[in-house]
Amino acid sequence: MSDGDKRVINFGAGPSALPDSVLAEAAKGLLNFKGTGIGIAEISHRSKEFVGFINELESLIRTQLDVPPTHKILFTQGGGTGQFSAVVLNLLARHRLLHPELSDDQRHLDYVLTGSWSKKAADEARRLGGGQVNIAADARTHSESGKAFQQIPAHDAYKFSSDPALIYYCDNETVDGVQFSHEGSSPTSFPFHLLPKNILLPLVADYSSSFMSRPIPRIADHAVIYAGAQKNIGPAGLTILIVRQDCIVDVDAAAKLGAVPVPISMSYKTLDDNNSLHNTPSVLPIYIAGLVLQRMKDLGGMPYYEDTNRKKAQKLYATLKEGEEKGVFRGKVKEGSGSWMNVVFDVLGDGAEARFISGAEQEGMKSLKGHRSVGGIRVSLYNAITEEQTDKLVAYMKKFIAEAQ
Amino acid sequence: MSDGDKRVINFGAGPSALPDSVLAEAAKGLLNFKGTGIGIAEISHRSKEFVGFINELESLIRTQLDVPPTHKILFTQGGGTGQFSAVVLNLLARHRLLHPELSDDQRHLDYVLTGSWSKKAADEARRLGGGQVNIAADARTHSESGKAFQQIPAHDAYKFSSDPALIYYCDNETVDGVQFSHEGSSPTSFPFHLLPKNILLPLVADYSSSFMSRPIPRIADHAVIYAGAQKNIGPAGLTILIVRQDCIVDVDAAAKLGAVPVPISMSYKTLDDNNSLHNTPSVLPIYIAGLVLQRMKDLGGMPYYEDTNRKKAQKLYATLKEGEEKGVFRGKVKEGSGSWMNVVFDVLGDGAEARFISGAEQEGMKSLKGHRSVGGIRVSLYNAITEEQTDKLVAYMKKFIAEAQ
Repeated sequence: MSDGDKRVINFGAGPSALPDSVLAEAAKGLLNFKGTGIGIAEISHRSKEFVGFINELESLIRTQLDVPPTHKILFTQGGGTGQFSAVVLNLLARHRLLHPELSDDQRHLDYVLTGSWSKKAADEARRLGGGQVNIAADARTHSESGKAFQQIPAHDAYKFSSDPALIYYCDNETVDGVQFSHEGSSPTSFPFHLLPKNILLPLVADYSSSFMSRPIPRIADHAVIYAGAQKNIGPAGLTILIVRQDCIVDVDAAAKLGAVPVPISMSYKTLDDNNSLHNTPSVLPIYIAGLVLQRMKDLGGMPYYEDTNRKKAQKLYATLKEGEEKGVFRGKVKEGSGSWMNVVFDVLGDGAEARFISGAEQEGMKSLKGHRSVGGIRVSLYNAITEEQTDKLVAYMKKFIAEAQ
Repeated sequence: MSDGDKRVINFGAGPSALPDSVLAEAAKGLLNFKGTGIGIAEISHRSKEFVGFINELESLIRTQLDVPPTHKILFTQGGGTGQFSAVVLNLLARHRLLHPELSDDQRHLDYVLTGSWSKKAADEARRLGGGQVNIAADARTHSESGKAFQQIPAHDAYKFSSDPALIYYCDNETVDGVQFSHEGSSPTSFPFHLLPKNILLPLVADYSSSFMSRPIPRIADHAVIYAGAQKNIGPAGLTILIVRQDCIVDVDAAAKLGAVPVPISMSYKTLDDNNSLHNTPSVLPIYIAGLVLQRMKDLGGMPYYEDTNRKKAQKLYATLKEGEEKGVFRGKVKEGSGSWMNVVFDVLGDGAEARFISGAEQEGMKSLKGHRSVGGIRVSLYNAITEEQTDKLVAYMKKFIAEAQ
């Protein structure tokens, strides 16, 4: 694997690093998939080999995440942005069938805003109409400027509707580096205890950038959990959905009652009725995701990744704190709200950020620039980043701190 | 390339064969893209390397197909099925902005039905509402059973609306093996001369299974031409759009006037405003498509492929005719309507079809089974299938005919 020798450490926020062993295996599969003599990108998605593979993919997710039998696992294209629309359309259809008597004004969609992505999701719900967007909590109100997403809102800041069409949150905000704690007792955990009672919860979670980096709390209470694959799971082009069965509804019947029409490829019922093979799926990204998930299982599944990812994040935040105390770095996120996956901070001083980035590149560490909308540094520590690679960055940060004195 | 030695000839209808040299190059790119030290599936879609690549992809399509400057070339996900919805939503929005005074009953969508795919497209337009579907021509009325798609309709069978929101046809029907002739004078060509006058034509063509297999006639008259990549261009997961600029409209303004809301990822304006990078695209399929398109250019572009694909089809149809005359095969499509890309026929006699398929597999030729909805044999002769590979199948068919005597 001579090309592999030249590989750098890729701290990019996504598309992001994949394990070397998976890429080497995928390179072989490109030419010959499971001895068929046909490459994986060329094989029919209806061949027994591929159908077997996609079923195995389902099972690898179900067992590792402990997805209950009440929920289907579906695969589609279009990423998180596609789901911004799809969850609204499918859950508005569901709500219409449950409550045909309500007007659009009486149909609420609750959004929890903790960063750029949940804000975009709420914007899309407003665009599509068919209901009223209610901001259940907005993390920006906690910030000094009133404009920045820097923390998870305090529990007493949430106001949920009593019977909304959906309740939306984003587990991990990739741009802003804000993430919910998964310790139920933490003040920065998602406030499951405040959610409306006596209804099947229409809870939607965007897990795009933290999917399978650790267990998902209270899966059974979720209506839809979705994730683009291109952070922890595989290449861009695959979107994974976990959908509670009561949310797989006859969208055409709902449209007849006045719901917004749902494009056929966005209907969860279409996906489910056809084992996610209504139309040609993104075969190659699915294949690579399968290789990644098998490797994850072999390494120990969620307990292994939770443990490793916690350690990686702790090391990085400890070093960041060290730099803060010495006036070299400034973290952008309040303590307790910091993401395990995307650690964001500024490097203080004239030209210091560029020096930080180019010094890292010289040591073979790339893609450390923050999102163009917020600037600064962003270190993405997805599953494929090892503890050793994190240690290398930590050592570099410590050296940078020392040299800045 | 030891795995390559074991490769079979893949006559599958899609996902379908890719050139060996492209797959070998892609296997390298998986580990290291353009010397970045980062694999193509891992690199940021906003990196200068990837943006350069997608711009080059645009240019490779534009120059080879001679796409005029009136038209944008856009990339998205979701395949042809995604576009069944997207073209309807975008062109209904355009029509609403042009004619806000019309009721849904007065807004027509003209569909030409020549096979399973155009029928599905029309079904989707009916599902979405917002206008009346008018079947401008239905090839089944020409068939004996009144149910089979076996030919392109005669020119006098078309009835177009005077100012419809869209006029839809599918250049090549992958399942039924029916394709429009590109000789303007042919009775099985698309009847451009019968289209409504004095409007900017809202002509939509599904080119999924014939894209870049030969030149596209009268591109400038088209509102939208689209194609899933997974036949001639690359792996599944990439959809290519050629959109005339007047069809890139403010869908939100149209929705305010009562048009069906358009999911943000399906809005052509969103794609265009963001150089097809509104959200993370399917990076790996795009990469492989770029390699395929570069190879196509190197081999001689459209003139080369038109010439080669014509020869391949002629050889196959000649052999099919030979088998028909000897009572061994029965073609499913009327003369003049046969697809260059998907040649469909029955093998006559008890168990003969299974014998034909297994004999071919023994000689390293796979995926010859017809679509599950119609049965029989389907030979897909996409760009990656060489003349030599076609000759091998032709020789096998001749041997099969001889042995059946």
